[in-house]
Parts: sequence; C-alpha cells; structure tokens
Amino acid sequence: MKTAQAMSVTETKQEIRALVSRYKKEGKSIGFVPTMGYLHEGHLALAKQARKENDIVIMSIFVNPLQFGPNEDFDRYPRDAEGDRHKAEAAGVDVLFIPSVKEMYPRALSVQMTVTKGTDVLCGRKRPGHFDGVATVLSKLFHLVQPDRAYFGLKDAQQVAVVENLVRDLDFPIDIVPCPIVREPDGLAKSSRNVYLSEAERKEAPEIYKSLQLANKAVEQGERNPEKVISLVKAHLSAHLSGKIDYVELYSYPDLEPVHAIHGRCILAVAVQFEKARLIDNIIFAE
Amino acid sequence: MKTAQAMSVTETKQEIRALVSRYKKEGKSIGFVPTMGYLHEGHLALAKQARKENDIVIMSIFVNPLQFGPNEDFDRYPRDAEGDRHKAEAAGVDVLFIPSVKEMYPRALSVQMTVTKGTDVLCGRKRPGHFDGVATVLSKLFHLVQPDRAYFGLKDAQQVAVVENLVRDLDFPIDIVPCPIVREPDGLAKSSRNVYLSEAERKEAPEIYKSLQLANKAVEQGERNPEKVISLVKAHLSAHLSGKIDYVELYSYPDLEPVHAIHGRCILAVAVQFEKARLIDNIIFAE
Repeated sequence: MKTAQAMSVTETKQEIRALVSRYKKEGKSIGFVPTMGYLHEGHLALAKQARKENDIVIMSIFVNPLQFGPNEDFDRYPRDAEGDRHKAEAAGVDVLFIPSVKEMYPRALSVQMTVTKGTDVLCGRKRPGHFDGVATVLSKLFHLVQPDRAYFGLKDAQQVAVVENLVRDLDFPIDIVPCPIVREPDGLAKSSRNVYLSEAERKEAPEIYKSLQLANKAVEQGERNPEKVISLVKAHLSAHLSGKIDYVELYSYPDLEPVHAIHGRCILAVAVQFEKARLIDNIIFAE
Repeated sequence: MKTAQAMSVTETKQEIRALVSRYKKEGKSIGFVPTMGYLHEGHLALAKQARKENDIVIMSIFVNPLQFGPNEDFDRYPRDAEGDRHKAEAAGVDVLFIPSVKEMYPRALSVQMTVTKGTDVLCGRKRPGHFDGVATVLSKLFHLVQPDRAYFGLKDAQQVAVVENLVRDLDFPIDIVPCPIVREPDGLAKSSRNVYLSEAERKEAPEIYKSLQLANKAVEQGERNPEKVISLVKAHLSAHLSGKIDYVELYSYPDLEPVHAIHGRCILAVAVQFEKARLIDNIIFAE
C-alpha cells in the first residue's frame, strides 16, 4: 500500500528526470498518464487504474502545440491548473509534470516523426499531422518519465492504436494499457462536450452506444460482414437521432485497415454531429 | 572490477530485454556500442572506453538496411561474425546483440523518422535518407538496450552530431559519448579503407591530418574566418596529395550550420578521393 504523501508538482525536465531516476534506483514501477489537462472522470479513471498497478503514478499535463492544426483550437484549449492539481492528487497521482511549451520544445526539432499507418481514417482523416505531433510528444514524455506502463482511454481508440503501433515499431520498453470508455448510467460515453447537447439531443444520445451494442450482438451471433454491421448501425442512428452521422467505420485493430470479414480484433467507430456537439464512440470486437 | 565471465550472445529482442531488465534491477550502469560489425580498432576503442565507464558493456552488430540507399552496398557490406565475436569478447564486451533484419523489422514501420538538421552537408549530401535510417535504428536499439551511455567514434562526426541532436530533441535519457579518432603513428585516421591505398598514396595520406593540424594552429592563433581556414587546408592538400579533394567544409557543431566566424564548437571536415579509396577526417575546434 502507498502511504499518503503530498503530490510533487514539477515544471522542468531536470526535476522529472531526477525523480524518475530516484524511483528507478529504488526499484519502483512507474505508471504514466499523459493528458492535456482540464481533467475529467475519463482521465481520473486512468489515474486510478495506474494507482492500482504501479508503485508510482506520474501524470503529465501538456497542451502540445505540435498536434494542433493551424485552424484548430490550441490557443482556446481549456485550462484549469488549480482544479487539475486537486483532482490529480485526489486520484492518487504522485507526481504532476506540467512543462511549458518552451521547456518541451526549446528549439526547432532536428527530427520529424510521421505516422504512416492508421491516420487517414476515422477522426484522423480531418486532422493531417495530428498524430505526428502525438507521436513526437509521447516519445519525448516516454523518455522523460520512463514508465513501465502508460494509460490511454479507449474513447480515442485511434490514438490508442497509433500509440500501440508506435511502441511496438520503435521497441519502447513500455506496456500500453488501453482503458475502457467511462459511461453515464444510460450508456452515453462521458465527454466534456456532452454539456453542449440540447435537452432533446441529450435524451437521444445514448442511442449511439445502443447502436454499438446492437452491432456487437450481431457479431456475437455470427455476422462477419462489415458492410452489414455498418448498415445496421447507420439504420439505428438515422432512426433515433436528430444529429447527422459523420462516419460509421469498421477496421482491424490496432492496424486500422479495412477488413473484408470480421475476424480477430476489429473496431467499430461512430461520430455524430449534433447542433453544437460532435460525439464519438466505439466498440472493439475481440473474438 | 569486473570478474571475467563469458560474453553472452543474443539474437532476439526478448533476450536482450530480459538481460537489460536484470541489469537494471541490479542497479548496474550500461554502456552501449552500436556497430555494423566487421570490427576494427575504432570499434574496439569504443568498447574499451565503455568498459572503463560502465558496469555492463553491450555491443550490437546490425547491418541496418534502412540506412543504405538503393545503389549502396547493403548486400556486399563485409561480415565476419566469428571474428567479431572474438574481438568483442577480448575488448571486454559483456553482451553481444546480433539481431536479424526480420527480428529488428518484423513488419512495415508505422512511423517514419526524418532527420531535418545537419544532413545536407558533408557526406550526408550524397546519401539522402541515410540519417533517417540511422535515427530509426538507434531509437529502436536505445529502447532495447536502455543504456546510460552510448559510444560513437568521431571519425563519422556527422553521425555523432545527428545522434546528439536526436537524443537532445527527443529527450532520450542517454549520454552520448563522442570518442576520439584512432590514428596510425603518422597521423592517418584508421579505416578499413586504408588498405585500398597504393604505396605512394599511403605515403601522402598523413598530409590530410597535417592540414587539419595547420588549420587548428591558425585558429589557436586567432584566425576566425572560415573561408581562410578552408583555403589553407585546400592549399595544403592540393600541394601534397595526388588524390582529389571531395570537400573541405566548416560548420558549427553539432548543429552543422554554416558559420560566419569561428566561435564556440566548430567542425572542419575533409574528404579526399584517391584512386580506389575515399578517405575522410575531421577536427573539432572547441574554443
């Protein structure tokens, strides 16, 4: 059991390296939860799982400019340093690493990372370069924190897939731990964007998860045709939602490649555009 | 002091990971010497320095297809597994890691690394993509071996510069240790290619190092103009060598950017084409 102790907060690479080096010398395992802050229950669930499985839990909060496109909301990305600090500590985080952009990128990078697999599908299709920035900042954070395990939420399953491939292909000595989507009692995936739903939209929104469950049932009962499963989901969404279907796609996981038949691990992912909120959800078939 | 023990030889990632994990648990420091094999005195000097500075010395031998161009000599690159084994053991290597290409690259990579700084100068100018392959394989090897220190010979100073930048920009928790060029008694930098020199060429060849020493003396005496230093070297080489000057270049180090005046760390590098051998040499001014 961990003895209660004040959370350390550090803004510098030098300090995080010194802490990590000490933990390593003490033979302690490190669980890592990389975030962009503005913490919600999804992040805290990752921290709690890391707390159970490691001696030390390190969380980073860094809004990474490299993964935002020129027309995206880097400058407007919500920040709440004080609130995050309390939430992280309450979730059992030992060390909170909050570097500045200058600390993480003190000069132009001499090496460019380009993710070539699993980016041109799902949400990544509209965010060219996004996962290049994710891969770069995670490589840096992994080197600074040297975790045994790193925790990612399956809400952004494409990110988990890209990270699993990155770690495998570059041989990072890290276990990537994908964590289940946290849901409201009625099944709606938790998201900070849910507050933008109108009352009527909020009532419909759980149908997204219901459509995924229908698909899951069909696959369990032997359906192997991706087109049929996708049609099933689209029909359910069209019948029950006022929002517009952005995509319903099915791929192998984590390779995110089209499949002719549902075998092995596959992901079925959905994005729906409501008036002010765009919601995403997914389910992974693991037969 | 290290007690004499048979060198371990391993061909798999799984085994090297297990060994590294054990050393880490025992709190042992790891020195790493990555090579492409066909070991000569240059490599062995790296191993010997690693031996002095670390509890464990790991050497890799891997001819990395990713760093060879389509018209380069990957298939003809010289190999001598048996000889290498004896030499490595005699130099004090504890673990020799000799993976196959299939072991290192079991599938197409999902991420491409592109080195954007310090590549389009010196020898790199004629080898597009070479340092991308170097950065990729070293990232993988660094993750597998998790060294405290990695040793590189300054004979290929451009490679050392690229690796120093890579480690700094991606925050690898590794000290890069650049090691001095190993020379013959008459000053000629040791190289497996020296055997291709004719008798007459071999007699002239030490003038390459002499030209660098002349330049060094000029800088020590206050010369700050790169053009003048380069002219001095070119004049000396033209007067004393039958070989053709390929390049004489001077850059900041390790950024490898042009300088208007010689201040801080700078590299002066030379390549000379003889009839059957192309020789390179360099000196780093560190004022």
